[in-house]
Amino acid sequence: MPAVAHSVMFKDWFRSEDEFVGLLKALVAAEHRHGRAGAAERRSGVKLGIGDDAALLTTHRGRDLILTTDMTIEGVHFTCRLHPPEAVGHRALARSLSDVAAMGGVPRYALVSLAITKEVNRSWIATLYRGMQALASRFGVVIVGGDTALVPDRIFLDVLVAGEVSQGAALRRSGARAGDQILVSGRLGLSALGLRLLERKVSARRRRERAGAKEAIRAHLYPEPQCALGNFLSSRSLASAAMDLSDGLSTDLARLCAASGVGARLWAARIPLPGAPAASESLPLALHGGEDYQLLFTVPPRKLARLPLEFRGRPLYAVGEIEAAKGLKLVMPDGEVRGLEPAGWDHLRVRG
Amino acid sequence: MPAVAHSVMFKDWFRSEDEFVGLLKALVAAEHRHGRAGAAERRSGVKLGIGDDAALLTTHRGRDLILTTDMTIEGVHFTCRLHPPEAVGHRALARSLSDVAAMGGVPRYALVSLAITKEVNRSWIATLYRGMQALASRFGVVIVGGDTALVPDRIFLDVLVAGEVSQGAALRRSGARAGDQILVSGRLGLSALGLRLLERKVSARRRRERAGAKEAIRAHLYPEPQCALGNFLSSRSLASAAMDLSDGLSTDLARLCAASGVGARLWAARIPLPGAPAASESLPLALHGGEDYQLLFTVPPRKLARLPLEFRGRPLYAVGEIEAAKGLKLVMPDGEVRGLEPAGWDHLRVRG
Repeated sequence: MPAVAHSVMFKDWFRSEDEFVGLLKALVAAEHRHGRAGAAERRSGVKLGIGDDAALLTTHRGRDLILTTDMTIEGVHFTCRLHPPEAVGHRALARSLSDVAAMGGVPRYALVSLAITKEVNRSWIATLYRGMQALASRFGVVIVGGDTALVPDRIFLDVLVAGEVSQGAALRRSGARAGDQILVSGRLGLSALGLRLLERKVSARRRRERAGAKEAIRAHLYPEPQCALGNFLSSRSLASAAMDLSDGLSTDLARLCAASGVGARLWAARIPLPGAPAASESLPLALHGGEDYQLLFTVPPRKLARLPLEFRGRPLYAVGEIEAAKGLKLVMPDGEVRGLEPAGWDHLRVRG
Repeated sequence: MPAVAHSVMFKDWFRSEDEFVGLLKALVAAEHRHGRAGAAERRSGVKLGIGDDAALLTTHRGRDLILTTDMTIEGVHFTCRLHPPEAVGHRALARSLSDVAAMGGVPRYALVSLAITKEVNRSWIATLYRGMQALASRFGVVIVGGDTALVPDRIFLDVLVAGEVSQGAALRRSGARAGDQILVSGRLGLSALGLRLLERKVSARRRRERAGAKEAIRAHLYPEPQCALGNFLSSRSLASAAMDLSDGLSTDLARLCAASGVGARLWAARIPLPGAPAASESLPLALHGGEDYQLLFTVPPRKLARLPLEFRGRPLYAVGEIEAAKGLKLVMPDGEVRGLEPAGWDHLRVRG
């Protein structure tokens, strides 16, 4: 880990923070622990990983560097009661990978800052890292450093991801223009529905019985960052604007529109719904539920012919249109046009 | 900020997290807020700063990328009682800048993750950012993003710094060899003494009267990362190994020796002391006090002739020698040789 501190505090629990860092090193894929002038280094670009003052990495010509960081806090983004440690690790990394996807980039490196409480044992930490490492490996991302601390009240993660994108190809929020189509990469509100099912302690048996419950819970616990789609859109210059859906369609579309200086019209009947037990809940969940980590992007009319209906077997849903007039409108199936206010997603509420 | 979340939670306090992010944007130097294809972008390399999904940055040919991150937690690294917000911001960034210095690199970008409590007001946040921004500007560092959250118990910062260094020139911990001299870039234990004086509530008048008290408190509140020296050592290939002193000489030298597979002998009479009120306290503070953020580096004998006595008007202190035999030894002024155990620095103790 680049920085190592608080050795004495750790002595109550691990023998030292160095021992704790040693455990983390062991949890990160072996060939990336230390940079060696071998095949692993040339492949990964990691000259120096965990164990020095900082990580040392190779950058490529003709690429821009993408940096993003996201906090994951116990009681705010997860609870140990609802979220298994593997999912906590997966979600913490997925949030940052999703930001790189939204820029159209390829994620390469991650730094993990982890503050733990004494209630946390080694097995919990190991499982957290297993969840993170499994996702990292699948996306070709190397965990190259971070920081550690011991705190009294709540587990705290901050995951930085560095990625790269061809110069000039990055997707921004600010390029949407009137007439552009608005698309999303998957069903919305699924993660919010999954969280609701987890909170209601729906029994394992009932989950299996109810079609879609398992899928919703999986979408909440193990969201899939849309890096391949983002990179496809940026490398083909298909999208005029893009972002990832972390706080819900109504909130995030309002942000994209604000950055672009435009408004938008959504067609309620075209929004892919999560299929909540009560049908009346589905549209609100799709409009306001957060943490789906699907991509929201806009495509100019002249480029629509080049946009595939599906990407890697999953449909791309056209859900509305950008307008010059500011504000969000929702067109109901009966033609009624409603104003749509951003109703932000509150993850879990803060527990005092 | 790359990621934006928890909008509803923020409504109790700021109208929304977007408003909070807006405040942070305003606190960051104006020309870097959004990338424009103008002079500021070409100078800074920032194509896209705060306000999109991630930051977008230019990388240079022939340079390696340095990434490091450090957490700064209320009750662990600072308390609002002892540390003014300006110092909290300064110290949070200084920790990561110091890691880049230890690699011999030039820091370029910072991402700031900030979790605040409701007890914190706007003026506190603005002053925190002022402290961080002042240091960033002085080191040519641009704050390009981060994340924000609201938490119930304690303020939490995680500062990532990205820097660069010429390919192959980075300073590592692992290159020290028997016979190399051990040097430090300034007086040690000064920050620990400063913290002690702050904790003892030494009155402002007594601080002024006691020579050195003001200097020690300043060293604790506003440590100066040694980036220029680190870059000098790396660009001239003078140091065989280097790291920054964050946890105290005895702890950090043991780490450098472990990474290099060597031992070390320190000469007590050559260690630059902090000048504690009781002379008997000075050596322990210099050996075990943390957070000095001076550089610790080793120089092979054949390169000593090229090493200046001073760097930018400040002496470089030769405090010992690397040995083949493992373990740390301390040679007292009377010639007695003692074993030296790493006695880690505990910053502030965790307050439950």
